Amino acid sequence: MAIELKDLTKRADNYSQWFNDLVVKADLAEQSAVRGCMVIKPYGYAIWEKMQQQLDRMFKETGAQNAYFPLLIPKSFFSREAEHVKGFAKECAVVTHYRLRSSEDGNSVEVDPSAKLEEELIIRPTSETIIWNTYKNWIQSWRDLPLMCNQWCNVMRWEMRTRPFLRTSEFLWQEGHTAHATREEAEEEAKKMLDVYAKFAQEWMAVPVVCGVKSETERFAGALETYTIEAMMQDGKALQSGTSHFLGQNFAKSFDVTFLNKENKPEYVWATSWGVSTRLIGALIMTHSDDNGLVLPPRLAPIQVVVIPIGKGDEQMKAIADKLQPVIEQLRKVGVTVKYDDSDNKRPGFKYADYELKGIPVRIVMGGRDLENNTVEIMRRDTLEKETIGFEGLAEHIVSVLDDMQNNIYKKALDYRDTHIYECNDYEEFKQRVKDGGFFLCHWDGTEETEARIKEETQATIRCVPFGFEQTEGVDMVSGKPAKHRVIIARSY
Amino acid sequence: MAIELKDLTKRADNYSQWFNDLVVKADLAEQSAVRGCMVIKPYGYAIWEKMQQQLDRMFKETGAQNAYFPLLIPKSFFSREAEHVKGFAKECAVVTHYRLRSSEDGNSVEVDPSAKLEEELIIRPTSETIIWNTYKNWIQSWRDLPLMCNQWCNVMRWEMRTRPFLRTSEFLWQEGHTAHATREEAEEEAKKMLDVYAKFAQEWMAVPVVCGVKSETERFAGALETYTIEAMMQDGKALQSGTSHFLGQNFAKSFDVTFLNKENKPEYVWATSWGVSTRLIGALIMTHSDDNGLVLPPRLAPIQVVVIPIGKGDEQMKAIADKLQPVIEQLRKVGVTVKYDDSDNKRPGFKYADYELKGIPVRIVMGGRDLENNTVEIMRRDTLEKETIGFEGLAEHIVSVLDDMQNNIYKKALDYRDTHIYECNDYEEFKQRVKDGGFFLCHWDGTEETEARIKEETQATIRCVPFGFEQTEGVDMVSGKPAKHRVIIARSY
Repeated sequence: MAIELKDLTKRADNYSQWFNDLVVKADLAEQSAVRGCMVIKPYGYAIWEKMQQQLDRMFKETGAQNAYFPLLIPKSFFSREAEHVKGFAKECAVVTHYRLRSSEDGNSVEVDPSAKLEEELIIRPTSETIIWNTYKNWIQSWRDLPLMCNQWCNVMRWEMRTRPFLRTSEFLWQEGHTAHATREEAEEEAKKMLDVYAKFAQEWMAVPVVCGVKSETERFAGALETYTIEAMMQDGKALQSGTSHFLGQNFAKSFDVTFLNKENKPEYVWATSWGVSTRLIGALIMTHSDDNGLVLPPRLAPIQVVVIPIGKGDEQMKAIADKLQPVIEQLRKVGVTVKYDDSDNKRPGFKYADYELKGIPVRIVMGGRDLENNTVEIMRRDTLEKETIGFEGLAEHIVSVLDDMQNNIYKKALDYRDTHIYECNDYEEFKQRVKDGGFFLCHWDGTEETEARIKEETQATIRCVPFGFEQTEGVDMVSGKPAKHRVIIARSY
Repeated sequence: MAIELKDLTKRADNYSQWFNDLVVKADLAEQSAVRGCMVIKPYGYAIWEKMQQQLDRMFKETGAQNAYFPLLIPKSFFSREAEHVKGFAKECAVVTHYRLRSSEDGNSVEVDPSAKLEEELIIRPTSETIIWNTYKNWIQSWRDLPLMCNQWCNVMRWEMRTRPFLRTSEFLWQEGHTAHATREEAEEEAKKMLDVYAKFAQEWMAVPVVCGVKSETERFAGALETYTIEAMMQDGKALQSGTSHFLGQNFAKSFDVTFLNKENKPEYVWATSWGVSTRLIGALIMTHSDDNGLVLPPRLAPIQVVVIPIGKGDEQMKAIADKLQPVIEQLRKVGVTVKYDDSDNKRPGFKYADYELKGIPVRIVMGGRDLENNTVEIMRRDTLEKETIGFEGLAEHIVSVLDDMQNNIYKKALDYRDTHIYECNDYEEFKQRVKDGGFFLCHWDGTEETEARIKEETQATIRCVPFGFEQTEGVDMVSGKPAKHRVIIARSY
């Protein structure tokens, strides 16, 4: 299929449309025949695999182990934790039957009414309930703690308005569920996993994030605290990119999970859960990409270097290949993924545009003149800067360009973010400015009323009480009441 | 929880119970609260991860790419391929609603009748239909072919009788779906993937398999040919361990997937699909394990070597650790997974039994006397042979023991299999002998009637027409009619 790069909407014209276009044109994902569910295409999935590999390594370093729990959850499990069911009941896919039969005319199939389940089953929107029902059997004594399981799986939330990667009815994610003997340990675990997410976002995705704690309204259904990493997209909107929850003893109490402590006395277990999803791919796209297409951080790019030989005739093509082959081998030896594209059914200009669209970090081109001069042309995707250089130390140079690009796009995103965080003390000013995006640091009185009013009047929400900002007491800009700290308020995805 | 090894049923007493016991006692999996669905525990999941990693590598070497397609399939898609729907309609989980609401008494939740789907959705039992509906948009020209996608995911088939790993309502698997321009290329792909499965089974799982082609009755619903790998368990029963299907143009026609060939004329696309599942873990357990517990092939064992120091007091423990540490580091450097177990809350005898139960291939023990003599004791799990040896070349020796064990358990399984394959020409003899297990090479007239009669009278089924056996024409032992070749008949899981 021909790539119609010119049809890629410009960010300045319509940021939202640009994103939707890019997802499709860069071959990342597409809408499926099932409402709100996407097909993740091979190129998009390759990014997810790279993310998974690194996250999985980081989780295992903290002592978590992978496991797998059932897709379907008995309806009654849901009702056990009151807040939890309130949070998820409205968006559940419900299995009611287990068999189809031929229709009377024999031309189609229909649900077999005699195969009705006694109790309906819910496709997991998250797995706290089924996991804590299982943990009950795994935990008896303090020696069984901490218990730290993670699962990589699909979940389903029947969203009304969906967008690829950002909000889909089915999505892929990981959910960690840990059990601890003390409140302190569980709180520490929840914060530790938030740090893992922040580190991954910054060092691998090159996406700066604000870490913080959610307001009560925005908490995960059933949590005592929800910690979040919030990233800023290029339109100044916030994207909640990962959350970690301190669940207290809520699920332990709902599913009667106790342990005998060192004094041989029964206590309820303390819990956390934490997750990131394919939404991270949305964050990746929206943070770095530009009007020419994707910009991918080298550490997560499925193809890091593309090499395009442009020779006339077989002999010159072979001479070019002979020069490039040792460099490619050197790069592969140090773990760089290289694609050699000598296909002859596409013009070079088409290839350039396509690889720009797909966000390959480094492009190496070698033509007839380069062959004479013993040089290659290198282009890096972030700055689109080209340089013509010789073969001496070429592989090392490319590795350093990849490193530099990884750092550069992070710095660029950080600069953008930092110049779009504003302290604001006046609600009228806030209402005007928030439309243009950005994170607003405002004093908040801590009440749900103020929170609701801001949301209603500005479509902006309290993203979090940020960590690592020096906090001072002040006056709520909306209510005029005393406020203990500033929160980040922003429009969000 | 205490391990009660003595309660592990002996294979000779009740092979089936031994398997069920072992799955639970070795911490691989357990029954969940949802009918027919299992929880895969961390140790069982770690085996699956090792399998996935290697299979994924092998798939990618053939040019396949990973992708992800929706969990839910519109009911109407199912009816499009007539054989396919017949094969799967009777065991489908059906989603009919997308919301719950509070019950009238407010104490529970119930399905919200106003949230009924216009068209029911089926949880995928396999994904041919949704994938071919997607491929329609991806394939226009011969240049788009071959298209080779694989997905790692969960599927659901509402089985009436379930057993952990062998047959569960939900299971994890991979399903490859490829599209080709010619019949020959698709047939070749289906066979190639069968070879990949056979190679994996033999070289990684150490499980010998018979490759062959299924009878029409046993074919995948919608396939023109189903190729299979059949393994023999220690009770002589067959376990179908992986299948690869040549689907002809059936799905292309049902979903109208055509391409323009080099002459610019539209043709229907040719298809294959192929899959293996967590059932492979069942094959692994039942092929190698013994009355002491699991025996795992070193190449798939989550922990390959366990090191147990037995010292008196901190000083001796430290001296032992100092001696062992360099060996452990050497092993880890060459990719061997080593666990160092100096926990002091379990007796050595308990540890030995536990690691035997879990099938750790090599155990290294170092006690006070070893410290004096500068030796360690090594035990390998397959033969339970012990040797006391010095430190010179120890790491290399352990690596060679692991290799030897991998080969040895394969040979043992192969010997068992080969001495339990019988040529049989007499139906009365067959009926007597098939009860004791084994693969029976018998002439078959190729009719469904004979196949059905054998199944009815002996509970044995035609597993496949085996490849690589020299075939001669003969007489069907049941019907007395002429037969073109021998098939393998066996009882199976």
